[in-house]
Amino acid sequence: MALVVQKFGGSSVADAESIKRVARRVVETRTAGNDVVVVVSAMGDTTDDLLDLAARVTDEPPARELDILLTAGERISMALLAMAINELGVKARSYTGQQAGLRTDTRYGRASIVGVVPERINRAVGDGQVAIVAGFQGVNELNDVTTLGRGGSDTTAVALAAALHADVCEIYTDVDGLFTADPRIVPSARQISRITYEETLELAAQGAKILHLRAVEYARRYGVPLHVRSSFSTKEGTWVTDTTVGDQEEEAMEAPIISGVAHDRSQGKITVVGVPDVPGIAARLFEIVAAADANIDMIVQNVSSQATGLTDISFTLPESDGPATLRAIEAAADDLQYAEVRYDDQIGKLSLIGAGMRSHPGVSAQLFGALSAAGINIEMISTSEIRISVVTRAEDLDVAVRAVHTAFDLDTEESEAVVYGGTGR
Amino acid sequence: MALVVQKFGGSSVADAESIKRVARRVVETRTAGNDVVVVVSAMGDTTDDLLDLAARVTDEPPARELDILLTAGERISMALLAMAINELGVKARSYTGQQAGLRTDTRYGRASIVGVVPERINRAVGDGQVAIVAGFQGVNELNDVTTLGRGGSDTTAVALAAALHADVCEIYTDVDGLFTADPRIVPSARQISRITYEETLELAAQGAKILHLRAVEYARRYGVPLHVRSSFSTKEGTWVTDTTVGDQEEEAMEAPIISGVAHDRSQGKITVVGVPDVPGIAARLFEIVAAADANIDMIVQNVSSQATGLTDISFTLPESDGPATLRAIEAAADDLQYAEVRYDDQIGKLSLIGAGMRSHPGVSAQLFGALSAAGINIEMISTSEIRISVVTRAEDLDVAVRAVHTAFDLDTEESEAVVYGGTGR
Repeated sequence: MALVVQKFGGSSVADAESIKRVARRVVETRTAGNDVVVVVSAMGDTTDDLLDLAARVTDEPPARELDILLTAGERISMALLAMAINELGVKARSYTGQQAGLRTDTRYGRASIVGVVPERINRAVGDGQVAIVAGFQGVNELNDVTTLGRGGSDTTAVALAAALHADVCEIYTDVDGLFTADPRIVPSARQISRITYEETLELAAQGAKILHLRAVEYARRYGVPLHVRSSFSTKEGTWVTDTTVGDQEEEAMEAPIISGVAHDRSQGKITVVGVPDVPGIAARLFEIVAAADANIDMIVQNVSSQATGLTDISFTLPESDGPATLRAIEAAADDLQYAEVRYDDQIGKLSLIGAGMRSHPGVSAQLFGALSAAGINIEMISTSEIRISVVTRAEDLDVAVRAVHTAFDLDTEESEAVVYGGTGR
Repeated sequence: MALVVQKFGGSSVADAESIKRVARRVVETRTAGNDVVVVVSAMGDTTDDLLDLAARVTDEPPARELDILLTAGERISMALLAMAINELGVKARSYTGQQAGLRTDTRYGRASIVGVVPERINRAVGDGQVAIVAGFQGVNELNDVTTLGRGGSDTTAVALAAALHADVCEIYTDVDGLFTADPRIVPSARQISRITYEETLELAAQGAKILHLRAVEYARRYGVPLHVRSSFSTKEGTWVTDTTVGDQEEEAMEAPIISGVAHDRSQGKITVVGVPDVPGIAARLFEIVAAADANIDMIVQNVSSQATGLTDISFTLPESDGPATLRAIEAAADDLQYAEVRYDDQIGKLSLIGAGMRSHPGVSAQLFGALSAAGINIEMISTSEIRISVVTRAEDLDVAVRAVHTAFDLDTEESEAVVYGGTGR
């Protein structure tokens, strides 16, 4: 008997039929002898519909009111799910973020969880109830409703799992788990059985959409085992824990060097050409960029020319931040004394991720070799301990991902069982 | 400068355009120098849509979950209205029943208010904010959300007005106020300028649909002046207070004997024929009826026949309670020893209401005379201090209402100003 936290997203509870399907899933877990706490998102398009209503009333909704508005969505889905579970003969009750003890700061629209006091959830579980909790929302010290922003429901689930000392936090989604690459681009991509928090963070940050960065960070901090799996099948998904080592010692021997290949097409690149290579200018540039609220990802500075004393600085950032950042740099032209600034939104980023590369030299060389063999030019490079990222032309990205996936033996020709071993836990 | 509580129903906030219209109305009241607290219902069909969703999930939704589900509707409308008011440059914030301090008992679906602790609302008003409060909902001692049942939003408004010592509670509706009869049946019906709580209670109980009984009872208990008025015009509506006497002494002289004629077509009549006229049988009958959860209205027992020692008992009840009550009586046939039981759903009820009839004898005679002159047969009669009700054939009801309305000089040929005086307060 375990305590299982299950999170179902908006597409899993899109309509009455879906809610009944989720209810059956929850009841299966419960009748198998587990204690179950469920976190739900708003039904399908509810949140968009509410945003649309707000837009028809005002262009600038006050953040507090927007949060109250949007949290109605989860209240609807949680009550309906509780009803559907009761209908199947299993006791269930729904709880708002406030009732579940999800306490946040006061930053409406993107609140952080400052504490979880799940007394009522503990009591419900102790009474043999399935507790359904509204995702995405909490309450602040003013007793006002807040929303957690993007990835909020995943984060609610992980935070509750941590506070309840749950054995696992299951994140249900519409795919089977995490894959070595996006199966739409690499048809031979393989489902990952086990992966570390760190690698998952890199995957998520690099454009894998399934798990939210924030929830993974929370899970890592509190050591909550995540199980990412499909709401359409009962097969094992991907386990995210602090190690890829399973229960059997021999599996450790076969832990993979590379976990997967992520890609991201949503970034743009700004290049500031002919910047005086004197101390302080780069710092000034990035102050200006930060003031424009841009989230910078990669930065490359060329070696300066001895002859001119000038250098070029390139950095990538989300395309949505591009135009405003460009304007900010252009407005500071006198200050920065550059020759020219260019914006390029036709870039793609490929990232190779694997905790194993720490102890395996030569991964970079193998990556560059694979890209070169595929005739793909590398425009920027950045690395971390468990990741290598390169920028290519956007049009080359798919070919690049496939080439790298193959070069690192990630294709499905090999049996998963041999490479990863085990079936989770 | 007054403190005004304004209540807007679902049809007043049916869509984004309506919400913007209500916002303008609220802002007018605010900029005229008043403090304003607004109570809103759910938008248009929201509640029905949510009930429909629940029905697709289960036939028997747990009451607690149904309440959480339904209260989402008011949260949506209140947040949107707060946004729309802010958009007009006036500060507004929305508050759930819980946040507004609406405390109830634990009877989900039909909770009673046990206390109002409007600290946050007082603070908001003190800060110059318009406070928007979700109608129809409160929180119980378990910190669970409850709904107040039918008339819930009116009751929320009155309860808040009482707790805040508001100068007036304005109930906005889609008609101009209360009328001496339903204008669809009596085209010459006149708007009532002033009416007492007592008379309004009789009007509401007798089928006038504009104000809910419960809210009027609450207003009477706490002496909250009600102003029932149209959300489509700024003209004075109907004032409901503890007296029809206005500010001028001479107006008292002209206080009307009769306030209006109500009608009700939603009742049925059960007649139990040939009941032994011995002590205890009638009591037993009404025990059985009470156990069937029927809300009995009028009861008539014939004088028993000396020859047979048998009597007939008739009573009226809502049509919706008819079939179940009939079955309960039939099931108790051996017990009650009656000869026959009949059900008649083709009845109509007309009620003449007026605080003035207390001191004016002859009102009954005048009523019966008017009905007789119109050729209408009276099947049952019941009276209270300020009301006389009669049962007729359903098909005669419209003619009866018009005849009585005319007989008591309620038609609009007379100027309102002469009869009622004043224009409210």
